[in-house]
Amino acid sequence: MKALVYGGPGLISWSDVPAPVIRHPSDAIVRVDTTTICGTDLHILKGDVPAVEPGRILGHEGVGTVTEVGSSVSNVNVGDRVIISCIKSCGHCANCRTGLYSHCLGEEGRSGIGWIFGHLIDGTQAEYVRVPYADNSLHALPESVTDEQGVMLSDILPTGFEIGVQAGHVTPGDVVAVIGAGPVGLAAIATAGLYGAATIVAIDLDEGRLNQAKDFGATNVVVSGAAGWREDVLALTDGAGVDVAIEAVGTPQTFTMAVGLVRPGGHVANVGVHGQPVSLNLAELWIQNITISMGLVNASTTPMLLKLVAQGKVPAGKFATHHFSFDQILGAYDTFSRASETKALKVIISRVSAT
Amino acid sequence: MKALVYGGPGLISWSDVPAPVIRHPSDAIVRVDTTTICGTDLHILKGDVPAVEPGRILGHEGVGTVTEVGSSVSNVNVGDRVIISCIKSCGHCANCRTGLYSHCLGEEGRSGIGWIFGHLIDGTQAEYVRVPYADNSLHALPESVTDEQGVMLSDILPTGFEIGVQAGHVTPGDVVAVIGAGPVGLAAIATAGLYGAATIVAIDLDEGRLNQAKDFGATNVVVSGAAGWREDVLALTDGAGVDVAIEAVGTPQTFTMAVGLVRPGGHVANVGVHGQPVSLNLAELWIQNITISMGLVNASTTPMLLKLVAQGKVPAGKFATHHFSFDQILGAYDTFSRASETKALKVIISRVSAT
Amino acid sequence: MKALVYGGPGLISWSDVPAPVIRHPSDAIVRVDTTTICGTDLHILKGDVPAVEPGRILGHEGVGTVTEVGSSVSNVNVGDRVIISCIKSCGHCANCRTGLYSHCLGEEGRSGIGWIFGHLIDGTQAEYVRVPYADNSLHALPESVTDEQGVMLSDILPTGFEIGVQAGHVTPGDVVAVIGAGPVGLAAIATAGLYGAATIVAIDLDEGRLNQAKDFGATNVVVSGAAGWREDVLALTDGAGVDVAIEAVGTPQTFTMAVGLVRPGGHVANVGVHGQPVSLNLAELWIQNITISMGLVNASTTPMLLKLVAQGKVPAGKFATHHFSFDQILGAYDTFSRASETKALKVIISRVSAT
Amino acid sequence: MKALVYGGPGLISWSDVPAPVIRHPSDAIVRVDTTTICGTDLHILKGDVPAVEPGRILGHEGVGTVTEVGSSVSNVNVGDRVIISCIKSCGHCANCRTGLYSHCLGEEGRSGIGWIFGHLIDGTQAEYVRVPYADNSLHALPESVTDEQGVMLSDILPTGFEIGVQAGHVTPGDVVAVIGAGPVGLAAIATAGLYGAATIVAIDLDEGRLNQAKDFGATNVVVSGAAGWREDVLALTDGAGVDVAIEAVGTPQTFTMAVGLVRPGGHVANVGVHGQPVSLNLAELWIQNITISMGLVNASTTPMLLKLVAQGKVPAGKFATHHFSFDQILGAYDTFSRASETKALKVIISRVSAT
Repeated sequence: MKALVYGGPGLISWSDVPAPVIRHPSDAIVRVDTTTICGTDLHILKGDVPAVEPGRILGHEGVGTVTEVGSSVSNVNVGDRVIISCIKSCGHCANCRTGLYSHCLGEEGRSGIGWIFGHLIDGTQAEYVRVPYADNSLHALPESVTDEQGVMLSDILPTGFEIGVQAGHVTPGDVVAVIGAGPVGLAAIATAGLYGAATIVAIDLDEGRLNQAKDFGATNVVVSGAAGWREDVLALTDGAGVDVAIEAVGTPQTFTMAVGLVRPGGHVANVGVHGQPVSLNLAELWIQNITISMGLVNASTTPMLLKLVAQGKVPAGKFATHHFSFDQILGAYDTFSRASETKALKVIISRVSAT
Repeated sequence: MKALVYGGPGLISWSDVPAPVIRHPSDAIVRVDTTTICGTDLHILKGDVPAVEPGRILGHEGVGTVTEVGSSVSNVNVGDRVIISCIKSCGHCANCRTGLYSHCLGEEGRSGIGWIFGHLIDGTQAEYVRVPYADNSLHALPESVTDEQGVMLSDILPTGFEIGVQAGHVTPGDVVAVIGAGPVGLAAIATAGLYGAATIVAIDLDEGRLNQAKDFGATNVVVSGAAGWREDVLALTDGAGVDVAIEAVGTPQTFTMAVGLVRPGGHVANVGVHGQPVSLNLAELWIQNITISMGLVNASTTPMLLKLVAQGKVPAGKFATHHFSFDQILGAYDTFSRASETKALKVIISRVSAT
Repeated sequence: MKALVYGGPGLISWSDVPAPVIRHPSDAIVRVDTTTICGTDLHILKGDVPAVEPGRILGHEGVGTVTEVGSSVSNVNVGDRVIISCIKSCGHCANCRTGLYSHCLGEEGRSGIGWIFGHLIDGTQAEYVRVPYADNSLHALPESVTDEQGVMLSDILPTGFEIGVQAGHVTPGDVVAVIGAGPVGLAAIATAGLYGAATIVAIDLDEGRLNQAKDFGATNVVVSGAAGWREDVLALTDGAGVDVAIEAVGTPQTFTMAVGLVRPGGHVANVGVHGQPVSLNLAELWIQNITISMGLVNASTTPMLLKLVAQGKVPAGKFATHHFSFDQILGAYDTFSRASETKALKVIISRVSAT
Repeated sequence: MKALVYGGPGLISWSDVPAPVIRHPSDAIVRVDTTTICGTDLHILKGDVPAVEPGRILGHEGVGTVTEVGSSVSNVNVGDRVIISCIKSCGHCANCRTGLYSHCLGEEGRSGIGWIFGHLIDGTQAEYVRVPYADNSLHALPESVTDEQGVMLSDILPTGFEIGVQAGHVTPGDVVAVIGAGPVGLAAIATAGLYGAATIVAIDLDEGRLNQAKDFGATNVVVSGAAGWREDVLALTDGAGVDVAIEAVGTPQTFTMAVGLVRPGGHVANVGVHGQPVSLNLAELWIQNITISMGLVNASTTPMLLKLVAQGKVPAGKFATHHFSFDQILGAYDTFSRASETKALKVIISRVSAT
């Protein structure tokens, strides 16, 4: 089969590789119908994630069709159309039993990490993929949900919701600031209303992205480069600060911005993937009764979010801005890597040619 | 009357000052029978808390007897023996209505901070003190609880419990590490069992303090200066890290120690008062699903803790290591400021001469 | 002044009575601009609430203007336009300090109940009313919110939200069944989306009310008298039952209906005021892992709901179906008591003549 | 092999039956070393549980040794000494993914119930037992924990803790009343301290059982038959009622007792297995802001409780009052069924002869 193979920093190719096979009774093989590219894939391509070794097939998001199941698989059947979750979970280790699927200890080298596709094992940017723990890692897709809606449930929608909205303890009536209107920030914006956020402020340097943010549910937008941006945000609160600040960029500056916006008693939810340490000014903050959360998605809310997507209550389809066929995947990487220029949010890569 | 008056950095005196009077219908005047000194008072004395102006009477902990009440006070009466909470709460501002008494917006300059005694208004290291919002800020003391037990409920016991144990989400069976076995760290140690902590590890540089920690409920102690200290702590867990790490020192090093001990999905509860920023290595932590909390005590659990002290279930009396009369208060400051040498935990300063 | 005075079962009159005066420093006097009638007032009129003695002015909902404040009142000022909460809360008793305002122990006979207007003290169906604990019991009303929107925040909106939606633990994606599409049931329907309810099923005998329910946010309606009604509700779930069933009628039959709809692990939230015991079939239910909640509103969410009403996110105005002036109040009682015939939801009674 | 076979109401025998075999890749076969009898087994014997068909091997508690595992089992190995949980959980159905293992939908007829041993499939009162979903249903036992301690973790300790203490929302400082000092009531008593219960009141008709209750952690005991028993309980509170009432008997009278003890805002946790409906006086209770919970154990806390038993913090061994070998199992049934006379709490039935 063909797959997008990592060859070391800066090197990827759409190459011939052996098709995957069932290795454990709980595995399934899925034919990938639609996949996409995540910002993390670009980090890997830069060589920032040393655990990814040359030869690895990349990708951790996908929608496909089950072609084979192991002997203990009972939740999905051959022929089922499924979402491939970016997180595998064995369902019986100490972490899975508390819902911490992001740190599943199950097999696959007992990695202690739920994200293994395109990282520790071969991923979804391929014609076929082996899915460990298929009963927990695959979700049957109803006909009414399209592939390109479904693929947003592999990672970005649950990430924005769980690590942004839920970890940030959004409650009805809250003022929520989301710093960074990229795909995951928009996912937080699109789902903050599920806990009754009254005011959702999108903050970004790029006015184009802020305009998009309104389509996803932002009630207010603030250009972060502009003078007085912080005062503009605080003016939307009682002056004391926002209830929840969601960091969805991953830089020291944006993290500090988030911490500086939140009211006493409020929450900072870090969603961004960081490459450097940040400074936390505890000399001022120790007395402020805030909490700071961070983490990898558990993807435990994927079935619930899928239901809402099917009902038209979460605008999953709007993330798909560009379409490619598998044999155009290098072009998709190019388009996605120049997102500020191409205005790409998520690029859709499909088995059947995009027409 | 006499009071301990701050005269600027390095200057305190036991001086004659006017006795306090009722200013608002919700005030009470309390004759202070017992007070004590907090690490924060030493910070003030060094000039680290600029909001404290020369002329201010210090102190935010005390047990006393009500001598006068304002016209709207209904919970306490003249003659009642009371704990003076370190936190005032009006009971009706937006923060008080959500239990965030630490950031009470009520009067007194609408400070937005619950800690005002010995900070923004005159404090408890005096023969008499005016107590705003007496209905919420005073707690009647049963006869069975001594003054020196009661004074531990002004600040350190609720602080260790609320900001350490509760904010750290201690749950039954947890391994809890407490870094710093000073008074507030010991208060966390003494109350972690209220949420079923199975293993309570005290970590400190000082072996003497670690021995004291055992009396307060530590199940294990680790000398933090010793080689392999971190491995010693992790050996008490399943290897993945502690469930909750409570920082009770207030330095960048101890904060980093706390963050480095906690397992994926765990909690870091900062209790220490910090004077500098800390570095938070988000490049490693973003994926770890931990939360970090910090804050000033709400003192909402004081009545509950008082009940447990009365039942003998929380060893409040053990904090009192040295005794002074009011006219020896400068000596008390000296003893407390040399705690590592004097082995002082809390110094008790009483209206009646210590005999 | 004039007021609606209860004269014993079946007897009410619009009579001359002495105007109220400040009795405690925390009282305020409010000129009532708009009031309304609650189902509980009809119960009182039937003699079902013996604690209400002849001579009592009825009513516990209202919007008005502050005309006088006691010496300790600090949150509201003379001239402020305010919502009068149906619940008084002293802010400093043991119950208030945990947010259980519904059982405030403060003064007024230390009743242990937060609902005292038109019950244990004179109420709001009058030209003026004395409001105890004004700092907590009054909420300043922004200009953008009308009187008739505001008066829905005295009782029905917080009751439907707190006792229905919050106590029922509605979470994103839930199927919520609301039995009874009267004012409080509609308030639950109108606010269930604040916790992300995906499907909100209104269930009632009256098709007219079910049509109204759609305007308040019901996604589905089921006529409870029709054969197969239960199957129709379950068909909206995965077959296992609804996540949350909210009882908003107050009869044994409707309570049993609610219990019979809920899935294992689900919640029954009783909002209805009951006059008889109900049978709970524990022989079947003990194994079902459901919870049943019940209670009087705390009205702690009134400020938050007010914000959402001001933003147009909760349709408070739609409850107002009929308008009267104060001197037409007996007519308002007549219209409200024949609600099934008059299609009344809430009747608005205003100081200025309805034109 | 030999097993205790149900032959219909009133009929049990220690009979020869075929040994169990692996049927699914997730099964394990366990040699039972120690089992016990539950009150539910007596209900079955009376014919009260029609789902149990003649020919069924009874028993849902046990400690044993793994003799064979299916191809997908990864958490336990042949030779491991294990606790057999009374609840099977597949780990991947909708209910398991939210921790509601008690209503696991996995296979075994897709029963929707987690308790299947000795109910829907053959149980543990046998020389060998087939354990479905072995990865989640078995817990490896450390050497330091004896068989008779371990067998208390199959059902009664997690049931008392999860359905009594946790569902009852016990919090630090609470007054907890436990009605019924049988094995499960004692399990609640023994674990209420894990959430800081300050006062644990055991209530029973039998003074002998109340004396035992003190050994398990009851701070107070009240004979429920005695005049003034309710006043005796309320005297231990502030007069308003207990914070949590745990019903551990299963009769209408004891349920009504529990409801009548709880304060406004408090919780009733039903643990008892009921055979009849109860009356719930909503005419009085609707205004009381209480919650009532009920359910089958999820057994999700078994690993945590096992750790506490190993540390000596939960007195599991004290439940074992009588000892039998397998071939004396009919005598064990006789002793257990006459518990009020024999003073039996839990009878221990072991593979090796009790000497």
